[in-house]
Amino acid sequence: MSARAGIVVTGTEVLTGRIQDLNGPWVADRLLELGVELAHITICGDRPADIEAQLRFLAAEGVDLIVTSGGLGPTADDLTVATVARFCGRDLVLDTELEERIAEILRRLTARRSDIDFDSLRAANRKQAMVPAGATILEPVGTAPGVVVPGSPTVLVLPGPPRELQPMWRTAVETDAVRDAIAGRTEYRQETVRMFGLPESALAETLREGERDVPGFERLEITTCLRRGELEIVTRYEPDAAPAYQDLLTLLRDRHGSMIFSEDGSLVDDQVADLLSGRTIATAESCTGGMLSARLTDRAGASAYVAGGAVCYADTAKVDLLGVPADLIATHGAVSEPVAVAMADGALRRFGADVAVAVTGIAGPGGGTDTKPVGTVCFCVRQAGSEPVTRTVRLPGNRSDVRERSTTVAMHLLRRALRGA
Amino acid sequence: MSARAGIVVTGTEVLTGRIQDLNGPWVADRLLELGVELAHITICGDRPADIEAQLRFLAAEGVDLIVTSGGLGPTADDLTVATVARFCGRDLVLDTELEERIAEILRRLTARRSDIDFDSLRAANRKQAMVPAGATILEPVGTAPGVVVPGSPTVLVLPGPPRELQPMWRTAVETDAVRDAIAGRTEYRQETVRMFGLPESALAETLREGERDVPGFERLEITTCLRRGELEIVTRYEPDAAPAYQDLLTLLRDRHGSMIFSEDGSLVDDQVADLLSGRTIATAESCTGGMLSARLTDRAGASAYVAGGAVCYADTAKVDLLGVPADLIATHGAVSEPVAVAMADGALRRFGADVAVAVTGIAGPGGGTDTKPVGTVCFCVRQAGSEPVTRTVRLPGNRSDVRERSTTVAMHLLRRALRGA
Repeated sequence: MSARAGIVVTGTEVLTGRIQDLNGPWVADRLLELGVELAHITICGDRPADIEAQLRFLAAEGVDLIVTSGGLGPTADDLTVATVARFCGRDLVLDTELEERIAEILRRLTARRSDIDFDSLRAANRKQAMVPAGATILEPVGTAPGVVVPGSPTVLVLPGPPRELQPMWRTAVETDAVRDAIAGRTEYRQETVRMFGLPESALAETLREGERDVPGFERLEITTCLRRGELEIVTRYEPDAAPAYQDLLTLLRDRHGSMIFSEDGSLVDDQVADLLSGRTIATAESCTGGMLSARLTDRAGASAYVAGGAVCYADTAKVDLLGVPADLIATHGAVSEPVAVAMADGALRRFGADVAVAVTGIAGPGGGTDTKPVGTVCFCVRQAGSEPVTRTVRLPGNRSDVRERSTTVAMHLLRRALRGA
Repeated sequence: MSARAGIVVTGTEVLTGRIQDLNGPWVADRLLELGVELAHITICGDRPADIEAQLRFLAAEGVDLIVTSGGLGPTADDLTVATVARFCGRDLVLDTELEERIAEILRRLTARRSDIDFDSLRAANRKQAMVPAGATILEPVGTAPGVVVPGSPTVLVLPGPPRELQPMWRTAVETDAVRDAIAGRTEYRQETVRMFGLPESALAETLREGERDVPGFERLEITTCLRRGELEIVTRYEPDAAPAYQDLLTLLRDRHGSMIFSEDGSLVDDQVADLLSGRTIATAESCTGGMLSARLTDRAGASAYVAGGAVCYADTAKVDLLGVPADLIATHGAVSEPVAVAMADGALRRFGADVAVAVTGIAGPGGGTDTKPVGTVCFCVRQAGSEPVTRTVRLPGNRSDVRERSTTVAMHLLRRALRGA
């Protein structure tokens, strides 16, 4: 049996949903990469009794490693280290050298500010230098150190801000204490197939077929997930079950080949970025209001291929900025394929780009009609010197769903057009 | 003592971070509104043994209500209802009338598709009509029904997709079974103060002062959260502790008045939307790539005040589309206040708007220099007929952090300019 782990995310702001937890999923991914089984993520507020109950629960479930995030700050509600020390039966001791190093960080951080009283700041941060006896100290990335407390289970205590937690994780997995805790891990492979446009029930049917016909199917741990019209199939298996995975893949290609857009886990965003290499793109958006261009510029290096975009929310902006003929809007309505084509043409011209994508639709909640209900969205992808590709869809959900789904549909249309499919 | 609840989120795709859980935080918020104490959110994969362990843990912690989300779909890995039935000691029985209603929904959903075999679809969905004996059935919003299983604790089983879970929650809280489970809830008030630009340590210092000087301070449950430069202070208290909250608020105003932008929980987005009433706005974005206009158009009714925006990633686009003089870019660089002003002017003119916001900066990872390192971002807010307001900041973090923080800084500059402060 593989080494097992649990994650404890602390913080009342996370428990009550005022801040989204990014650490649980991130650490989960890292554990999976290491081949450590993750059984549970638990979230609680800044109450020591609740934190301790979760630590006891995970210990009782027999995990080898508990990773905690959060509660290492200077404020009085940050109690994770003290709670872990008590749970592990260790005293909390002041590490004066660590205290000095934290003070040094604070001195640097506040050097340019005159409005902060350094001594009171330092006092507030003193508690961050209190560590469980015998623990391995992980140097601060921000101002909070982490600790590894060896034992059964070993507890790895990390700070809450992702930009502190992530670098500290990398240090932590190199420590003897963490290495010992996960020594029994199993090697796994993980493969991801992505499809666009297939209903989940149809995939379920194919997987039942696989269960019947693929030898070794039971050794594949398959999870499926439908998100914004994309279906993700993640399969984990031990290396010697690779032939079963190959058979499954053949079955999926057989049944749903035209829907599969990724067999290596790459996202449509990765593929579009690759396909845009050597070309430039411009966007013309109405209902998505900039989400498509924000998505295209999300990755580093986007400036090599993104020329720019126009968000033309008002009809006059469509006319003035993109040169959409006013009578086209009057005749067909702003949400129509002819207007989408004219928007794409305008963007192509305006930005001198090689390819343009236009999105115009009704995100709601208002603005729907009988013939064009909320969720109706028209698209056009135009490459210089080619015929425009257009599409009209009706997307389910609320305003935010329609805007997000529209962005994804645009990415897939773009991908197909750029591949020349 | 108030009624207490726990939330169990199931789904391997959530546990492993491939999909972000929106249900835990959403249900947490609803429970808090009802005055039900939330102690724990636990997340596990689609393994019955793990789901059952979490149910047992929450029951042992003495909660009155467990809410589960996910695992109600048609695929074989959807096992929540069966697991809850076993945990509650109830048989699983086929509800034939419910089965017929689900079939009716499927018939409607697939009416326009010829590529789907209705019978196999119906077979896949039959398991969704298996319910624990004596449970209250919650009618499907999608195709999956929910159930309420009364007992100690009462278990409320909801589907995973937020657009199904949320309407079903509203039905569920009206059922006798859920009402009985949370009968012992306490009334709470919750107030939120938001600040921009204050370091968390300075707030911690003020809260220590409050602990010393505010009578009844210990009856206030205060959580603080720093996010994208905004500091959120949420306080929960029973109605008779209201005077203590008023004293705390007076203290916060006293110490940090100029940093407080919201005392009623409203977001900067709400305030900007209100301030824009009767005016129109245009955006000119470089490094944020459309995120600012996407944020401004996020809320329903944005078409009343958003004229549009230009995403000018390439310098030529800044010149061609916004009329930024090329020599201004050559002299000062694209990331400079003079260029930000010219971008705002261009947007104001181009879209015929009353106010324009421009953002130009270096999001990284490349592009930084000694004088303008990654994170340097210049802003301009220009109202027709007024002097431009400019600002240059250096933001911490990676590309995505810099882009998000820039969007937030722009919203705050806009808010101040529109208030005429």
